[in-house]
Amino acid sequence: MSKAVVLLSGGLDSATTLALARAAGHECHCLSVDYGQRHRAELGAAAKVARELGAATHRVITLDLAAFGGSALTDPAIAVPETPTEGIPVTYVPARNTILLSLALAWAEVLGARDIWFGANAVDYSGYPDCRPEFMRAFEALANLATKAAVEGRRLALHTPIIQLTKAEIIRRGTALGIDYALTVSCYQASEAGLACGRCESCRLRRAGFEAAGIPDPTRYA
Amino acid sequence: MSKAVVLLSGGLDSATTLALARAAGHECHCLSVDYGQRHRAELGAAAKVARELGAATHRVITLDLAAFGGSALTDPAIAVPETPTEGIPVTYVPARNTILLSLALAWAEVLGARDIWFGANAVDYSGYPDCRPEFMRAFEALANLATKAAVEGRRLALHTPIIQLTKAEIIRRGTALGIDYALTVSCYQASEAGLACGRCESCRLRRAGFEAAGIPDPTRYA
Repeated sequence: MSKAVVLLSGGLDSATTLALARAAGHECHCLSVDYGQRHRAELGAAAKVARELGAATHRVITLDLAAFGGSALTDPAIAVPETPTEGIPVTYVPARNTILLSLALAWAEVLGARDIWFGANAVDYSGYPDCRPEFMRAFEALANLATKAAVEGRRLALHTPIIQLTKAEIIRRGTALGIDYALTVSCYQASEAGLACGRCESCRLRRAGFEAAGIPDPTRYA
Repeated sequence: MSKAVVLLSGGLDSATTLALARAAGHECHCLSVDYGQRHRAELGAAAKVARELGAATHRVITLDLAAFGGSALTDPAIAVPETPTEGIPVTYVPARNTILLSLALAWAEVLGARDIWFGANAVDYSGYPDCRPEFMRAFEALANLATKAAVEGRRLALHTPIIQLTKAEIIRRGTALGIDYALTVSCYQASEAGLACGRCESCRLRRAGFEAAGIPDPTRYA
């Protein structure tokens, strides 16, 4: 089995991505980042998901992005919106996906892994610049200039298998792979125990996804 | 004055880059990363350099790259070489520059800065893949897809003013700008007090640079 690094937040999208990476035959090394996110409960969910879906290892690395702030997810003074907003939402974390992918790249290089799997989605979150396919292509190009492996001719591939799927399609795909979505936490302001608010954008998209998929929503709401 | 983020390690190259960014008229916000490097003394040097060269702010962010290891700079079990080696040296830290630039990008976005200055050098350290001009161009392209600012049409520029200079040229340029290089620490295994070993590759290049520039070497050797 070839090694892959899988970015695992503990939410629905990254859990599905892990299941797809496993189904593709990879030995999966999951990376979560404790970046000062408001919804730290997702990190506990990530540990459960990694175990349940047969990850080879799961590592949590700490990086205090709250030191920079600038997002409702890292600055307690900026509220999480509970009604739809125009443009790029305040839940956008500056350069977050660039940072997450850089850390995945570092670990991939140390492990000798040639594949990174990332559960970004451009359909529901089209407001986030760093969820777009053109961003992913640019990161893959960068990765293939950045590392010793690249210089030595071992190319690295970035896989974003759910980037163009709707939430309902993601849920159907994951359910077919046997994922228990009750383990996952998507809410931007989940309680410490992992209970979802049911009102933030992430909760609304997730709930609508289960409805559209015709699958009972197992989310534990507060 | 327009804001710029300057990556500042505490070494000779990044100090010179800061002086050049100041000379270009920027309000400089310096970022250092405590990534578990063996030569932590460079962080104290960075604070002194930032103050001495008129930085507006200096921030140190912590990220434990030693959790990944894979480099003589982050793994105490891998010795720093004291004689020249073939190929990419073991002092290469996997994906380090991608990570440093990602963090600079995040802070630039929060500050509303449109310029990042980075003291990478491709001449002396040509073995490091992430010091090459093509890597810098790829990162700048990525940055201009990654952020809210980019989507809204505010382009970000990555400046690497010393990338093609020899160490002697860098030292001459910095000396002309009034830098006191005694404040800087380049040694890969500097003591806690910032004393240089005089034997590692970084010390050898630095010493040879002062010799070639015909400028007395102010380095404090152990």
